[in-house]
Amino acid sequence: MSAKMIYGDWTISQEGFDVRYLGKTESIMCLGNGYVGSRAAEEESYVGQSRDTFVSGTFNYFDENEVTELPNVPDVWGMDFQINGQPFSLLTGKIEAYKKTLDLKRGLLTREVSWSKDDVSLKMTFKRFISKKRRHFMASQVHIENLGSPVSISIKTGINGQVSNEGSQHFTEGEKGLVDGKILQMCPQTTHRKLDVVISVCHELKNVQATTRPEIGRRSFSMNFDFKLAENEQVSLEKRASIYTSIDNDSDNHSIQNMRNVAVSELQDLESQSFEELLAESTQAWAEIWQKHPIKIKSEDPRDQLAIRFAKYHLHSMVPAHDERMNIGAKGLSGQGYKGHTFWDTEIFMLPYFTFTHPEIAEKLLTYRYLGLAGAHKKAADNGYEGAQYPWEAAWPTDGEVTPVWGAADIVTGKAMKILSGFIEQHITSDVAFGVKQYLDVTGNQDFANEKAYEILIDTAKFWASRLEYDAPNDRYVITNVMGPDEYKEEIDNNAYTNYTAHWNISYVIDLIGHLKAEKPEVYARLDKEFNLEALKANLKAKVDKIFLPQPTSAGIIPQDDTYLTKPELDLTKYKSADGVDGLFHDYNLHQVNGFQVTKQADVLLLMLLFEGLFEKELKLKNFDYYEPKTTHDSSLSLSTHAILSADLGKLDQSYDFFKQAINIDMGEYMKSSDPGIHTASLGGIWQMVVFGYGGVRMIEGELRIEPNLPRAWSHLSYGFDYQGQAISVEIGEGKMVLTKAEGPALQFIHQDQIMNLEDTLTITL
Amino acid sequence: MSAKMIYGDWTISQEGFDVRYLGKTESIMCLGNGYVGSRAAEEESYVGQSRDTFVSGTFNYFDENEVTELPNVPDVWGMDFQINGQPFSLLTGKIEAYKKTLDLKRGLLTREVSWSKDDVSLKMTFKRFISKKRRHFMASQVHIENLGSPVSISIKTGINGQVSNEGSQHFTEGEKGLVDGKILQMCPQTTHRKLDVVISVCHELKNVQATTRPEIGRRSFSMNFDFKLAENEQVSLEKRASIYTSIDNDSDNHSIQNMRNVAVSELQDLESQSFEELLAESTQAWAEIWQKHPIKIKSEDPRDQLAIRFAKYHLHSMVPAHDERMNIGAKGLSGQGYKGHTFWDTEIFMLPYFTFTHPEIAEKLLTYRYLGLAGAHKKAADNGYEGAQYPWEAAWPTDGEVTPVWGAADIVTGKAMKILSGFIEQHITSDVAFGVKQYLDVTGNQDFANEKAYEILIDTAKFWASRLEYDAPNDRYVITNVMGPDEYKEEIDNNAYTNYTAHWNISYVIDLIGHLKAEKPEVYARLDKEFNLEALKANLKAKVDKIFLPQPTSAGIIPQDDTYLTKPELDLTKYKSADGVDGLFHDYNLHQVNGFQVTKQADVLLLMLLFEGLFEKELKLKNFDYYEPKTTHDSSLSLSTHAILSADLGKLDQSYDFFKQAINIDMGEYMKSSDPGIHTASLGGIWQMVVFGYGGVRMIEGELRIEPNLPRAWSHLSYGFDYQGQAISVEIGEGKMVLTKAEGPALQFIHQDQIMNLEDTLTITL
Repeated sequence: MSAKMIYGDWTISQEGFDVRYLGKTESIMCLGNGYVGSRAAEEESYVGQSRDTFVSGTFNYFDENEVTELPNVPDVWGMDFQINGQPFSLLTGKIEAYKKTLDLKRGLLTREVSWSKDDVSLKMTFKRFISKKRRHFMASQVHIENLGSPVSISIKTGINGQVSNEGSQHFTEGEKGLVDGKILQMCPQTTHRKLDVVISVCHELKNVQATTRPEIGRRSFSMNFDFKLAENEQVSLEKRASIYTSIDNDSDNHSIQNMRNVAVSELQDLESQSFEELLAESTQAWAEIWQKHPIKIKSEDPRDQLAIRFAKYHLHSMVPAHDERMNIGAKGLSGQGYKGHTFWDTEIFMLPYFTFTHPEIAEKLLTYRYLGLAGAHKKAADNGYEGAQYPWEAAWPTDGEVTPVWGAADIVTGKAMKILSGFIEQHITSDVAFGVKQYLDVTGNQDFANEKAYEILIDTAKFWASRLEYDAPNDRYVITNVMGPDEYKEEIDNNAYTNYTAHWNISYVIDLIGHLKAEKPEVYARLDKEFNLEALKANLKAKVDKIFLPQPTSAGIIPQDDTYLTKPELDLTKYKSADGVDGLFHDYNLHQVNGFQVTKQADVLLLMLLFEGLFEKELKLKNFDYYEPKTTHDSSLSLSTHAILSADLGKLDQSYDFFKQAINIDMGEYMKSSDPGIHTASLGGIWQMVVFGYGGVRMIEGELRIEPNLPRAWSHLSYGFDYQGQAISVEIGEGKMVLTKAEGPALQFIHQDQIMNLEDTLTITL
Repeated sequence: MSAKMIYGDWTISQEGFDVRYLGKTESIMCLGNGYVGSRAAEEESYVGQSRDTFVSGTFNYFDENEVTELPNVPDVWGMDFQINGQPFSLLTGKIEAYKKTLDLKRGLLTREVSWSKDDVSLKMTFKRFISKKRRHFMASQVHIENLGSPVSISIKTGINGQVSNEGSQHFTEGEKGLVDGKILQMCPQTTHRKLDVVISVCHELKNVQATTRPEIGRRSFSMNFDFKLAENEQVSLEKRASIYTSIDNDSDNHSIQNMRNVAVSELQDLESQSFEELLAESTQAWAEIWQKHPIKIKSEDPRDQLAIRFAKYHLHSMVPAHDERMNIGAKGLSGQGYKGHTFWDTEIFMLPYFTFTHPEIAEKLLTYRYLGLAGAHKKAADNGYEGAQYPWEAAWPTDGEVTPVWGAADIVTGKAMKILSGFIEQHITSDVAFGVKQYLDVTGNQDFANEKAYEILIDTAKFWASRLEYDAPNDRYVITNVMGPDEYKEEIDNNAYTNYTAHWNISYVIDLIGHLKAEKPEVYARLDKEFNLEALKANLKAKVDKIFLPQPTSAGIIPQDDTYLTKPELDLTKYKSADGVDGLFHDYNLHQVNGFQVTKQADVLLLMLLFEGLFEKELKLKNFDYYEPKTTHDSSLSLSTHAILSADLGKLDQSYDFFKQAINIDMGEYMKSSDPGIHTASLGGIWQMVVFGYGGVRMIEGELRIEPNLPRAWSHLSYGFDYQGQAISVEIGEGKMVLTKAEGPALQFIHQDQIMNLEDTLTITL
């Protein structure tokens, strides 16, 4: 039986079981509520399975040679079944039917298995969810129907603390306890940060008489249920679980005993509510998300509509909307990849979704960066710079830089390669500033501006001023030895993206200081104490116009860096058509790839997308046609950028191709791309392609622009967003665009170079 | 296909694969050379498998709440096979044949698998050994023969550091490196003791062209071999591996770089030698063991002969004969059970084998106890006593007590139970003294006596003198709140075994001090400085005759402790007939069992066996008949004691029943008894049953006695041992016993109360 993906309106399913592809649905069907997230691993165990559950913000490091990461907390989903004394595994017997489904609308994972072996024939239905309503709570249910001969079944399930992060164990074993004869508790502690975790589970077996026996092992605490099932008899096992930690911000009492008591009370209080009722209240919490700025796409391919639901489901299942000390990891809470660390993926790829549709969450994500200023100061100081240099990878906000120094093996030398990103991928600092500025432009949130945003913007500009290197022979400032968004090019000079965005950050802050002095004297005074604003402004002004901004060649190409255009080209056809993205590195090592005009992901083109006002359309076209064929898109951050830019450039068919490729990164039929976790930036990219790319929304130099460009396959698109505190709905189709908003002051936006005034409804013919 | 055990002359095999029983052969077919030991886990992975490799003495603790244990070092045996892109697992496809065999003579593990799936049909033969000649070296070989259609095969194998001790990780990831393009190295370090380990592997694929690619992952470093196998084509993959650690006593330079260099040199030096040659030299090293005092049994059941080979193989695969800082764990190097700790199992059950047949190894095992005096002093002082109180569980000799404080769950309360053994199972101290004394009696090793043994004996007697409690109303010394060998009875008073052996230890030392003063004035003078021998002797003498030694009741029963005989009895028939030994604890908790006249293992009866001179035969008979029916034998230490004692008492048929049960503890057909590791004390017990029980050898009060008692099924038994530095061979059969020894002074022994004189050959009619 081979596995294939099936797509519904609100569901994504895998039909057929294939042990090679466990990682696919574990990642893309992961459950979460931003507080806790869990891979959708099968209940029964398989070699190659990754049983991961993460709680946002609980970073710990194994030892001083490893970087901090989100620890894999003891598992509550696993269940061992013995059927007539034989372990149940889909590798044995016959799978009559297998369907695993994630219901995005309800956040419900279902697995329906019909399985037979000898005279045993069972229909098993597994359901589970992590409550979107109660952050600590999750539940699962197994329903078994006996379609064959009478059968003896044993189920062993409880809390399994033998899980680890690929062998690194972050937890002590912790105390265990049985409360009320049925609530199993385990209280591990992280080894370094000494963070306490209380995990509680309880079970209820329905419809049959069973022998029940608790069993304590090393790092494990389980209940055993032994029962017989007559022909046509049915049984249900319901399991409920909760996780509390000593950094929870919904409690002041973090003693283990108090957490244990709270967990017990919660489970006892919910005892009278059925699985369906608890699921219903969680579904209601999800409904509030779905009801806010829903996106409707009428496309020849219904999968386009599903993609945006898939993206929003995952963005909300992983975003720690409850706690500003946490951010979104590059794999969310869906896998060990990137260790739960936050990258520029947040500000450039995911934040726009929240800024435009859930600004209260965007504010928390940016407050995380505000709390991270201490770590950014430390990084700058460690490197001999001033101001705030944001870490390439961030964990707990005050940790500063947490990028690992060593990565995978070099295929030629067999030695581990040094990861330079933490040292030289410096554009993250302007990316954070860009995200802050976009948030201010979209929301107009003055409190956040005054209290946090200006400080971030000034501090990052201060960093860039100190980072610039004076090139005396040319009387200019350069930025050497960096890595741009294209991570194939290590240790290059004057990466266009880096230089332009640094220039923007500095220019913007020169204006900002003037604005604050004039308009917000109290804010100015406070910040002046920290930054000595006039001196800083003078310094910024002295440098800004001398920053080297790579200019177009005679052929109209902005050089990605000082040497890129001098390198030989390489035909990428072979690699671009492959399913996986790492084929190039089976043939060349990074040093060799560094020597070609080969680009991992949008670099100059991303610059042109984010700062479109700086470049003429014709120049953008030339650069698009030059760089795209040299780009492997060996980063999930690349395709959405290309999709939006090509839509802007009128290449709608090509754009829609990029769109299709981009939505398939996780959701598609290729089964091996998501093993280490879902691609969260790509999910943000899906929303951007729809709303920015085809919906035509853009925030450019402080002004909102709306210029839709539907691909040919789409007849209709509607979406919404918040702008300056007001909700705007946009419907595109039948040759026109209809904009609506509720009562409130009129809002301006640009359309085809014209300023439009939106009072309540406005129809624009396209 | 179900699994069954098959027994050969020198081999034990499992035919048929059953995933429920992986632990059985992993344990009983484990490989080892005393330096390193490894479970015989299948090369391919299965859920439930335990891939354990241990290096003697490398103890580490995970955190302050866990006790020190032998860490599971990165695995070198595992291999992932992809057959036409599908992972190879015996759970899928059809197993045409499966036979896994341990060849005891050569220390060779072989697995022959014929497997088909669709049009694939392969015959795979796996071989591996740990060299008995080169302590650091091991090798494996996979031979694949294609009996079906052409097939693509990928093999991934290398070093896997993701293994752990049930979730507790003892190692840092460590540096990795590829040397010479083919030697993979990984250098993990234990987290607390900071012990460096260098693991090296190299591979050679024979007969086919393959694509080879190294792959580094987290805690893993592998080679990938991708190749095609035509119909009837064959391929071999040979793998060699080594382990070095920074506590190795065969090197002075423990820098990682030096260990890496030595490992590389060794692998390079051996490159010209074939697998067969390297196996042959290891087989030769095993032959030296087999040639020393071979035991021949002519029995109706050839499995009796196999049992003694099985026992000797395992005793030598686990005993760290190379390093006196190490001892034998209760599961040897065959599993995580008992954490690699050393118990009284060594002195009372295994040491006699080494004392009588490999006294140079016995000396090392006892030197470990000498090195452990510091830890024993610490334990005594911590408990408010004087002298040397040996730890119930011992790891690194100077660590002192390492018994965990908390054990498994109480079935009634669900709470973890306190393990009292480390606090109150105090007879270990006299057991060590007993082992030392027996060694001195058998070997007459005066150097060891003078330098180490006397000190142990005096120090333990000093402990007992301080441990005794004065019972003023009765003017006697008692020992309250202890646990005897019967661990069902916690916190009891005046355990007969404890009181009698303490009395013996003290009595013996009173005599010893007199003897040293008279005969060995230099030794006396040295020890006097430490112990103030006259004062100590006076103290011992003042107490010895007042030590309460439980006397027989009117029915002739020596009370196991003060209250045992007052408790109700319990019918054990149901539990005694079951395969597993823990059935009793499914019905009662330890507290409840404590309330019955139920005994886990020989207690009073062991006392009567070890100190037979103290008790009349009739008394022993009465006690045997009283206690045996009350004994669950829920310890592998029980059956051999009962077998020998019942042989002594003329109950030969019953004895032979015990013998059969005892040899089957690990080797037998019950598949679940050995999962956590082999029962090492039971292996020592097998030798004791044969040589002590049926061969009739006994060292009693300093005198050798030989009085054979063959069971009816045995027509002939020959064995040998070293006595006073001379080798004695004994042949029993056809109504006579023939003793032989080489040149040397005549030796005396007792036979049927007569002193016999053995000059070269002596024939005694039985």
